[in-house]
Amino acid sequence: MHNELIVIDGLQYSNWSREIFLQLQQGGVTMVHATLAYHEQIRETLGRFAQWNRLFEQHGDLIMPIKSATDIRRAKACGKVGIMLGAQNCSPIEDDIGMVEVMRELGLMVMQLTYNNQSLLACGCYEKEDSGVTRFGRQVIREMNRVGMLVDMSHSGERSTLEAIELSSRPIVISHANPASFHAAKRNKSDRVLRALAESGGLLGFSLYPFHLHNGSDCSLELFCDMIARTAELMGVEHIGLGSDLCQQQPQQVLEWMRNGRWSKELDYGEGSASNAEWPRPLSWFRDSRDFPNLTAGLQARGFSNDEVARIMGLNWLRILEEGLLPQTA
Amino acid sequence: MHNELIVIDGLQYSNWSREIFLQLQQGGVTMVHATLAYHEQIRETLGRFAQWNRLFEQHGDLIMPIKSATDIRRAKACGKVGIMLGAQNCSPIEDDIGMVEVMRELGLMVMQLTYNNQSLLACGCYEKEDSGVTRFGRQVIREMNRVGMLVDMSHSGERSTLEAIELSSRPIVISHANPASFHAAKRNKSDRVLRALAESGGLLGFSLYPFHLHNGSDCSLELFCDMIARTAELMGVEHIGLGSDLCQQQPQQVLEWMRNGRWSKELDYGEGSASNAEWPRPLSWFRDSRDFPNLTAGLQARGFSNDEVARIMGLNWLRILEEGLLPQTA
Repeated sequence: MHNELIVIDGLQYSNWSREIFLQLQQGGVTMVHATLAYHEQIRETLGRFAQWNRLFEQHGDLIMPIKSATDIRRAKACGKVGIMLGAQNCSPIEDDIGMVEVMRELGLMVMQLTYNNQSLLACGCYEKEDSGVTRFGRQVIREMNRVGMLVDMSHSGERSTLEAIELSSRPIVISHANPASFHAAKRNKSDRVLRALAESGGLLGFSLYPFHLHNGSDCSLELFCDMIARTAELMGVEHIGLGSDLCQQQPQQVLEWMRNGRWSKELDYGEGSASNAEWPRPLSWFRDSRDFPNLTAGLQARGFSNDEVARIMGLNWLRILEEGLLPQTA
Repeated sequence: MHNELIVIDGLQYSNWSREIFLQLQQGGVTMVHATLAYHEQIRETLGRFAQWNRLFEQHGDLIMPIKSATDIRRAKACGKVGIMLGAQNCSPIEDDIGMVEVMRELGLMVMQLTYNNQSLLACGCYEKEDSGVTRFGRQVIREMNRVGMLVDMSHSGERSTLEAIELSSRPIVISHANPASFHAAKRNKSDRVLRALAESGGLLGFSLYPFHLHNGSDCSLELFCDMIARTAELMGVEHIGLGSDLCQQQPQQVLEWMRNGRWSKELDYGEGSASNAEWPRPLSWFRDSRDFPNLTAGLQARGFSNDEVARIMGLNWLRILEEGLLPQTA
């Protein structure tokens, strides 16, 4: 069954190479949402776009850029891996509302309003107090809705997330996180958030990052699929998908960049700790993108129908992108 | 006849407003190549794009962005004024070859390799010595050819221009200048350059900027059309068009920005002089874009056939853009 599916991974941040693109293709992945920036500001973000332009030029036989839901169907039809670019933070727009459309034109299709910390737009999930979406944040959500850039609240605080769901005229996503009821972590989400997300038509992408899982790197496929089944009951099976958070072959310094950017003089360990400062050990049944068929099999084994499996593996993401990426001006 | 034509103005830099867009529409202009940047670097150029995005949003009933020759026919069909953005200098790519494609994706369709001075790419027409296209310049021309960005040598030196014509795999343009034989000025072009430009399939856009004209602001329509006729004999009628260089309603400080950027502590007067430092007085028969029909009439009166008039007023530009804007990767 797996090869017939449209498979969408709602987030990866790997040290991209031909080898990794081939793994995605072998794993039957139709499209991956690839992180372009964590703390990169405007100029640096353009440099990232330029890097991707080179990758598209060099590996055009294998990958293609995704700027609409139609592109995803095109990628499936020609057997290429679609790459949709997004930012995990709002640094690519700095303090300039005009940069939302500029970045969208360059192909930034998704943007998180915050990455763990307070941003100019909203509050991150690691701050002590969350005062909600800011004045600038309201303007940016409206502009993102207008130009067709998806709002992602994966790393945001509870109140900011609830407000963003309310403020956005289009469904939003939490591209990579799990229910806090499955594993208590600052990055995982309360039932209240998940319910509000589903009610507004949004989507949760389940994370396979060990720090977001019960039993961490030893979480079993059965346990993971059981979490999906319980979340389907809470949110409805139309509102869930995948967001693996796979970070392959990245050196330690990239992990430190993700965690510390330029904001801290001391090392912040993010979801890790001083005694556990490195990349977590991957799951035995999800080492890289070649293991996506394991998820299809796991969901089938857990009792999901073929139709439900197809939704969770990609069609729900496709629907959200169909609704979310079309500019209102078009 | 004028209203049936596809009219293309190969360069304007005005203080854009609804009033000016209406003038363009009233003058029957199908598309204008609008200058986005003179000395603006990457971040500043993005700000200019953002300004244009706002103009497109606010005046979408009147103007539309041009990113292909097809867009020009579309603009003609729906009676809107097409706006094609270009840079008069290579500052928008700074020192980064990757920025060529990034800027092209944002809609920078034309770029001059130099603006009067030596640049990282080539030499400007005001330098004492022109050592030709640089190492970086060769890379950039190849990249512009690849992504479909037109090379413009309006403000370049003789040797650099001849080399660019030779190096470019696609026809290039001199979007706004006149033959030096008509009026001796550093910005006007030798017969040698014009012949090489025509032989390579390129195009010269005739300038209506008084500093480029015999008799300056008092140049008559008849004299102007006579120059066109003589250039048609030299280059062939397929290789000429218009590039009015109209700069409407710009304050003196913009003229000083054009001339001085950030490179000079003393005022440089460009084509003017200390005693003639201001914007030149416009031609009586070409005050603004509403006067384009005067050119059509003048060319007819000079004896050009309707077919030739249509070419000069826009079809030659359309042909160059058809050949020049399509990415090689598409």
